[in-house]
Amino acid sequence: MDAQDGGARATTLKLARGEVQTPVFMPVGTQGAIRALSPDHVLQTGSQIVLANTYHLSQRPGERIVEKHGGLHPMMGIPLPILTDSGGFQVFSLKKSKVDEEGVTFAYEVDGNQTFLSPERSMEIQQALGSDIAMVFDECLAYGVDKARCAQSIERTARWEARSKAAHRREDQSLFGIVQGGFWPDLRERSAGLTTDIGFDGYAIGGLSVGEGHAEMLAVLDATAHHLPTDRPRYLMGVGRPIDLVEGVARGIDMFDCVIPTRHARSGMLYTRVGRIRVSDKRYRSDMYAPDTSCACFTCRTFTRAYLHHLFKVGEILGASLATLHNLFFFAAYMREMRVAILEGRFEQFRAEARRVWASEAHRENDAQD
Amino acid sequence: MDAQDGGARATTLKLARGEVQTPVFMPVGTQGAIRALSPDHVLQTGSQIVLANTYHLSQRPGERIVEKHGGLHPMMGIPLPILTDSGGFQVFSLKKSKVDEEGVTFAYEVDGNQTFLSPERSMEIQQALGSDIAMVFDECLAYGVDKARCAQSIERTARWEARSKAAHRREDQSLFGIVQGGFWPDLRERSAGLTTDIGFDGYAIGGLSVGEGHAEMLAVLDATAHHLPTDRPRYLMGVGRPIDLVEGVARGIDMFDCVIPTRHARSGMLYTRVGRIRVSDKRYRSDMYAPDTSCACFTCRTFTRAYLHHLFKVGEILGASLATLHNLFFFAAYMREMRVAILEGRFEQFRAEARRVWASEAHRENDAQD
Repeated sequence: MDAQDGGARATTLKLARGEVQTPVFMPVGTQGAIRALSPDHVLQTGSQIVLANTYHLSQRPGERIVEKHGGLHPMMGIPLPILTDSGGFQVFSLKKSKVDEEGVTFAYEVDGNQTFLSPERSMEIQQALGSDIAMVFDECLAYGVDKARCAQSIERTARWEARSKAAHRREDQSLFGIVQGGFWPDLRERSAGLTTDIGFDGYAIGGLSVGEGHAEMLAVLDATAHHLPTDRPRYLMGVGRPIDLVEGVARGIDMFDCVIPTRHARSGMLYTRVGRIRVSDKRYRSDMYAPDTSCACFTCRTFTRAYLHHLFKVGEILGASLATLHNLFFFAAYMREMRVAILEGRFEQFRAEARRVWASEAHRENDAQD
Repeated sequence: MDAQDGGARATTLKLARGEVQTPVFMPVGTQGAIRALSPDHVLQTGSQIVLANTYHLSQRPGERIVEKHGGLHPMMGIPLPILTDSGGFQVFSLKKSKVDEEGVTFAYEVDGNQTFLSPERSMEIQQALGSDIAMVFDECLAYGVDKARCAQSIERTARWEARSKAAHRREDQSLFGIVQGGFWPDLRERSAGLTTDIGFDGYAIGGLSVGEGHAEMLAVLDATAHHLPTDRPRYLMGVGRPIDLVEGVARGIDMFDCVIPTRHARSGMLYTRVGRIRVSDKRYRSDMYAPDTSCACFTCRTFTRAYLHHLFKVGEILGASLATLHNLFFFAAYMREMRVAILEGRFEQFRAEARRVWASEAHRENDAQD
């Protein structure tokens, strides 16, 4: 660990393709591309590591094609470390998936192709994709299941985690476990215990960003993070908004991923130091200011709100690209500032300011379900 | 003129924002953006000058907004020279436009907004847009009108050209005339005479790329180009495919614009030294070669055909962006090679090779109607 300030941590992850300084936010490149953004622009955002999705990539283009490229990095033209998820979250959210102890049978949503995913199969795919961090294949429950069902599920997840670890061979690829347990502190503690007993390179907290509120999410973090080893990275999956990132860091989380900055960008929503602005709003029609006046990204250095407004109005793809570049730059810069605040022992100040700026957001539903 | 080789010319245009070496191809940025391409990538393509559309921009965002930015260049973040068309071509193609000697009344196709365009109004807009080259407002006829109608029309176009010139004030903006006259050599000669008598900084050949074939277009060029002064740039509007560019240059044309490279890119069609490839075709599914193996653009240096194929298959915008970058790079490089061939006195060799490569294209309909 590089520094600790209250619960907040600054660490350095050593991965096959380089080091990552935490806290860190990972942009999502679901289908092997950050939506609407060229790899050279991804690098410009200051992002340190990106995420790609096993479920989607195993179907299209298929992991054999990725492997033929030498893995995701050369295929995507991105020299940054990559984390792949296990595919679990997606296949469990499909309506007609059938689950048994062996794994999950499902129809690929695009062409109905009958497919099977299991801990062993997920490891096979992720190793072919060649990511720097692979995730175990876990059971993901829908929001609102009862405690008895959740208690059974964390036992299965533990068995699947053990199978994932047994099937994992690549030494240049880290493997992270996932703690489940819904909104019950005792189940989170039990799942954390089962997962750390197996032993992984890092630990993720799953089952959040499924429709719960901000307070509920924080309660789960309070009940979970301190059961995880302090010397391993902690990753909060699928979260989130800037205020979620700050409160997650305050509770000892090191890594995050979320579609919010990229998805919101494509609808004209920009994140700035003083809150969000919807640049497609009429009020920006002749606004000659930079999208974010305190931002040093290519978009903010080069263009006005009025021009971005115009691009969204006429449906030019470039609007989505420039907004995505800005939002990812903002998220990366925001995480870097948190790290510096931790290193300098003033994270609580940063957090107080963040709470003020994002006050109106904290109690809104997380609007980035994927 | 820098050099001449047969009918082919190499010249240097001196414009407010810098010099342009011809023959040159101008990418089309209809709505104030090259579709799917960021300005930094536009620069990477080696393009020297881009085109923007008066009709579209006068409606959205409106020329007052552009003017507030200080013109198109700062608004679009593009330091290259810009040519604006007069809006004529678009408004004459609208179904319900009403034409009289004063100008054209039409309903904007997006919101039905009743609008009037005339030589004076077109000059007002183009001067507000601040392009380096403005075009006169001419009368554009539909493909297939009879000779009597066309003969009347070139007289009106000449009157409108004179009004355009009288209304034009900006000294940092060149003004080009437009020769019309359909497919009748005597009308083309008359229109060229009327236009050169008024006197402009350059001369365009209009009324082509409206559905005629390759041979018909070349016949018009043969009948027109030699009536234009040799010391002024010649611009063939709305053309074309690589073979059209080569045959146009052979007939003394210096400048071209067309939506082909950008529009085709968005549908997965790539231009290469050995012809076109549709990268979305199944055959490229696992093709590990660069899109164009002899190309030095960012796309070809970084990605495989299989990855581009994948991006088009899953509908990622990045596919359109990377293909656009390549096609514009190809067109710019192709024009540069033509220039070098002219300077070195071997243009006929270049042309023979081009005819071989594009043989299957020459007799196909021009498929880039806009």
